Amino acid sequence: MVKVAVAGASGYTGVELLRLLVGHPQVDISVVTSRQHEGVAVNRVFPSLNGFCDLVCEPLDVSAIAAQVNLVFTALPHKSSMDVVPGFLAAGCRVVDLSADYRLNDKATYEHWYQRHTSPELFSEAVYGLPELYREQIKGARLIANPGCYPTSVILALTPLLEQQLIDARSLIIDSKSGTSGAGRGLKEGSLFCEVNEGFKAYAVGSHRHTPEIEQELSQLAGFDVRINFTPHLLPVNRGILSTCYASLVKARSTAEILAFYQQRYADEPFVRVLPEGELPNIAHVRGTNFCDIGLIVDPRTGRVIVVSVIDNLVKGAAGQALHNMNLMYGFNETHGLGIVPTFP
Amino acid sequence: MVKVAVAGASGYTGVELLRLLVGHPQVDISVVTSRQHEGVAVNRVFPSLNGFCDLVCEPLDVSAIAAQVNLVFTALPHKSSMDVVPGFLAAGCRVVDLSADYRLNDKATYEHWYQRHTSPELFSEAVYGLPELYREQIKGARLIANPGCYPTSVILALTPLLEQQLIDARSLIIDSKSGTSGAGRGLKEGSLFCEVNEGFKAYAVGSHRHTPEIEQELSQLAGFDVRINFTPHLLPVNRGILSTCYASLVKARSTAEILAFYQQRYADEPFVRVLPEGELPNIAHVRGTNFCDIGLIVDPRTGRVIVVSVIDNLVKGAAGQALHNMNLMYGFNETHGLGIVPTFP
Amino acid sequence: MVKVAVAGASGYTGVELLRLLVGHPQVDISVVTSRQHEGVAVNRVFPSLNGFCDLVCEPLDVSAIAAQVNLVFTALPHKSSMDVVPGFLAAGCRVVDLSADYRLNDKATYEHWYQRHTSPELFSEAVYGLPELYREQIKGARLIANPGCYPTSVILALTPLLEQQLIDARSLIIDSKSGTSGAGRGLKEGSLFCEVNEGFKAYAVGSHRHTPEIEQELSQLAGFDVRINFTPHLLPVNRGILSTCYASLVKARSTAEILAFYQQRYADEPFVRVLPEGELPNIAHVRGTNFCDIGLIVDPRTGRVIVVSVIDNLVKGAAGQALHNMNLMYGFNETHGLGIVPTFP
Amino acid sequence: MVKVAVAGASGYTGVELLRLLVGHPQVDISVVTSRQHEGVAVNRVFPSLNGFCDLVCEPLDVSAIAAQVNLVFTALPHKSSMDVVPGFLAAGCRVVDLSADYRLNDKATYEHWYQRHTSPELFSEAVYGLPELYREQIKGARLIANPGCYPTSVILALTPLLEQQLIDARSLIIDSKSGTSGAGRGLKEGSLFCEVNEGFKAYAVGSHRHTPEIEQELSQLAGFDVRINFTPHLLPVNRGILSTCYASLVKARSTAEILAFYQQRYADEPFVRVLPEGELPNIAHVRGTNFCDIGLIVDPRTGRVIVVSVIDNLVKGAAGQALHNMNLMYGFNETHGLGIVPTFP
Repeated sequence: MVKVAVAGASGYTGVELLRLLVGHPQVDISVVTSRQHEGVAVNRVFPSLNGFCDLVCEPLDVSAIAAQVNLVFTALPHKSSMDVVPGFLAAGCRVVDLSADYRLNDKATYEHWYQRHTSPELFSEAVYGLPELYREQIKGARLIANPGCYPTSVILALTPLLEQQLIDARSLIIDSKSGTSGAGRGLKEGSLFCEVNEGFKAYAVGSHRHTPEIEQELSQLAGFDVRINFTPHLLPVNRGILSTCYASLVKARSTAEILAFYQQRYADEPFVRVLPEGELPNIAHVRGTNFCDIGLIVDPRTGRVIVVSVIDNLVKGAAGQALHNMNLMYGFNETHGLGIVPTFP
Repeated sequence: MVKVAVAGASGYTGVELLRLLVGHPQVDISVVTSRQHEGVAVNRVFPSLNGFCDLVCEPLDVSAIAAQVNLVFTALPHKSSMDVVPGFLAAGCRVVDLSADYRLNDKATYEHWYQRHTSPELFSEAVYGLPELYREQIKGARLIANPGCYPTSVILALTPLLEQQLIDARSLIIDSKSGTSGAGRGLKEGSLFCEVNEGFKAYAVGSHRHTPEIEQELSQLAGFDVRINFTPHLLPVNRGILSTCYASLVKARSTAEILAFYQQRYADEPFVRVLPEGELPNIAHVRGTNFCDIGLIVDPRTGRVIVVSVIDNLVKGAAGQALHNMNLMYGFNETHGLGIVPTFP
Repeated sequence: MVKVAVAGASGYTGVELLRLLVGHPQVDISVVTSRQHEGVAVNRVFPSLNGFCDLVCEPLDVSAIAAQVNLVFTALPHKSSMDVVPGFLAAGCRVVDLSADYRLNDKATYEHWYQRHTSPELFSEAVYGLPELYREQIKGARLIANPGCYPTSVILALTPLLEQQLIDARSLIIDSKSGTSGAGRGLKEGSLFCEVNEGFKAYAVGSHRHTPEIEQELSQLAGFDVRINFTPHLLPVNRGILSTCYASLVKARSTAEILAFYQQRYADEPFVRVLPEGELPNIAHVRGTNFCDIGLIVDPRTGRVIVVSVIDNLVKGAAGQALHNMNLMYGFNETHGLGIVPTFP
Repeated sequence: MVKVAVAGASGYTGVELLRLLVGHPQVDISVVTSRQHEGVAVNRVFPSLNGFCDLVCEPLDVSAIAAQVNLVFTALPHKSSMDVVPGFLAAGCRVVDLSADYRLNDKATYEHWYQRHTSPELFSEAVYGLPELYREQIKGARLIANPGCYPTSVILALTPLLEQQLIDARSLIIDSKSGTSGAGRGLKEGSLFCEVNEGFKAYAVGSHRHTPEIEQELSQLAGFDVRINFTPHLLPVNRGILSTCYASLVKARSTAEILAFYQQRYADEPFVRVLPEGELPNIAHVRGTNFCDIGLIVDPRTGRVIVVSVIDNLVKGAAGQALHNMNLMYGFNETHGLGIVPTFP
């Protein structure tokens, strides 16, 4: 049994962590924190948890929490994470940080896209928590930088193409669409039901903060600096990210040939499902689960490959991947707590 | 291990049965049938099942299926069920029938609301599969008539009031609202996305076929013939039923007093969650699970109690309750395969 | 041409007033106010208005505005309205107030359900702006209390029954469902997309502030004090209210007989559409328009009539009715600016 | 007054034509046809039309209809249109055809993407009904090929870039997302509410039939054969298309510079709204109207321009554009019947 704390339990990522953790056979949830709902039981904040968790939200007191737990999930906004993560590590906890604070390994890049960083010395230690790329490093890590939701969907969609040097990485264009839970539970006019429902828009075109995170990992795979166009859009659904990725093939290949590389690359991955030729993924088919479904088509008319990936942004894009990382860190079965069948419809 | 067949696997109730059954530790799904998709793997019909079930849909051949399984879930339209259920029973199978064919215990009533019945001799044997009312009878049953979705939400909402004779049953008015999966996966203009989305309507007012089923069970609880107004409405959501029930109290009582009766009645029920005073249920908080959440308020201005219940129509209103019945029939832990935490949002 | 001001232009009722007013041939929109967006053009706040209105939002300065306009629409929260309405009247303006501040004619009732009232002396002058009931009084009014959205849907649904004394008013139960724009554009957790979408709940059961407004008007029609059960629910749609009303008939009558009373009562009403027997209304069929559609069924099994009405809460339930009132006040054609065909789907 | 027929009135394009035509001051709707609903009044098929149009659906009898009207709108599936259009023309009617049958000017291309064509001799006469490109030709045309919904959104998004030779047309990638009404009112499993709601997917990648139509017009603008990647996606909303278009600039330019070309190109267009720098369009802001809103951003990091356009697929993408064409053909004010303010929310 590992004793865990969930810091920031009253956001959508927080409640999703609790949903998954209460079903994990080797986890004891010892502490939940929420500034907004301090003193209130989490099942009063989220009645969905009635009967599963009635812990009372506590303030985020690093030393008090560190005395009680082995592992802390920090489901906090960026900046708030860097305020507490060094303290948890110093007190002997391991940390899975779901913010962006330790995902970039270059201080200047972080400070260009976010703000000043107060603990860049941890960058070299932090492991980017994408198990399909960094499984071995994750196992021994003290600090996991849990990947962003968009980057998870994009990196998994493109890894085989870049590892096998099948595409011209300079041609990459990524058109992503995310459900509204990705915007969090904060009170913003743009997150109101009537603003989102029956609407659809692109936002932060050319300036979304997940861009450098995607580029960092794609560059690593490509072996040189990759610059992409990344355009996020807001979908009127609760959950799900679909990324449509376009790239020019360096050499003509069929859909079946490219698919074979994907099937081989992900053959042993428990959470990546490569679809057969002729099928394309739908966010509805991964809802509530840690799966990334991938389909693709080669368009011989233009010489481009179009790869489409879907995830549930709150699971594979956040809380589920965090549990997967925990399972690796503690030597648990990788799928424990994550063997969820998608709910359709 | 019990070997089961799912007859009618390509409807929404069918895929929901599969979602739940693949996660049940004591079940072996041996056969799935679908007329529409015969010869196609169920995970091609429902890609959500990729990695969980790849059985090929077979025709509905009673003797061939009966030779392979112990228990058959018939997720068929009414009439289609009565065509095969007697055969399965005769061949030694137990049956959980999710159609309406064996829910009413009066032939004339069935034939008035539905059509001619060809095996009414089974009425006396069939057990109405609402565990909160008929747990003991279910355990030994060969044939379970799995309750309708609306009746489940209504009967659970009203049982304590009727058992304790707190209301005038003649005053009952039931205003129910159901998500669209309740209409099934059949091709009907009224089920098209653009007809349902951003719309809301009442339908089958005064004539819905669940009316006699509700009245049969409420009459049983009341001890005399109860006639109700039951008005269903169509909600633009995938899943969920909310029933708002109105009744005149025979004697003035406070909300807390009435709630105490509910808490007592359902104290040992694993799937009924009575909400504390001041909280009312939301279909979003039971999504994907077998829970029935109930809240209520007494309005002293009019002397009426208003009880609000919610269920997921495909789980507690269909497939989940069917699994619960199976667990009782085979002596399994009642919550096996059903210990699902609601996914919110 | 009448010169108008819209006070509170940045809410959903405000933008809806602008949508309708820019299409009205006899209206000159002279001033729009918004505290939140002062100094910003309304078409920057609501890009839907691009090309139709680019007025800059001003502060709510009563005397400055009164100097420029004949008529003020106050689309403000209750309390805020009573702070400015007396000033506008004193300065010679006519006012259509869309808040609740002048709808109740009893100070004690207002103060019981809302808060202290600072200008109750205007109650006797204010006309309840439901044209189907108070057309003549509206024509000469200085101050219109524009009806609430729920009350509009309920009163129109029940007027013929009460005027003709067809029902026992003590038996009235009203189950209403509203789209989310009814909650306004304010930042509330409960109005976030992910909290509303795929959810459904009752709220304010037995305590909604529209209750006394409904009771006041039903009592007026019945000739004695009527107490109702009124249960509002929140629908995951942008617009629309559907009210399902239940009442016991004092004498058995057929659906056709009751419908005949409705057809007669509303024969000359431009915005009430009584549906033929066998049809029930859908909020989707009045979207964006000032119509109230009404259908009904008598259930001979219980002796009750079930009346279902639908409106667009932002039009007939707010801005459209306000324009209708303006048309009456200024002797314009009643349908000017309101001859909109519903957009379906 | 022009007398018109709407052939195919019971689809979504048909009802949208009726919605717009009943509000047009110079139009007399003389005939509506529907095979499925022959003999039924259109306001029974679409209760939204109650009070506006109660014509009874007739069979599609070319000579009978031609005897009564000047202009026929054929809102029929492709193939069905070519069966009747030559007859209407021969009988002296003018035709606005909303199918794909006369949009392509090359018989081989049509037959490659669709099926055999029986009246290719009309190709040279048919005018592609995009007023922003072919206004003068439309005025005198007998046969208008009303553009497809996706092509309308894409061509308007790219016209200034191609006319001004600002981009490398070979680099064009178009990622489009359409509301579900684009799939029509036919009974298809993929159009059911529960299949679409809370889902999102790409479909027909590399093979959508609007591809040659887009390429034909872009090639015309570019002056050489353009091949594009066009990826449509299905949005869980009723109406709206958003196209995100990516292209490499031939020379570095700022967002403001590119926007200036758009503002100039569309300055006199009544239905194109170019958004100011920093704003991007949302389908919610054009709902129910004939507007095409366009925003764009230059990403200097990659040298690409990203243009985002939105339309209502049933209005600017179908019925509204058809009315616009009629207005041009008959010398009416271009905006008659189309001066609709978007309904938000």
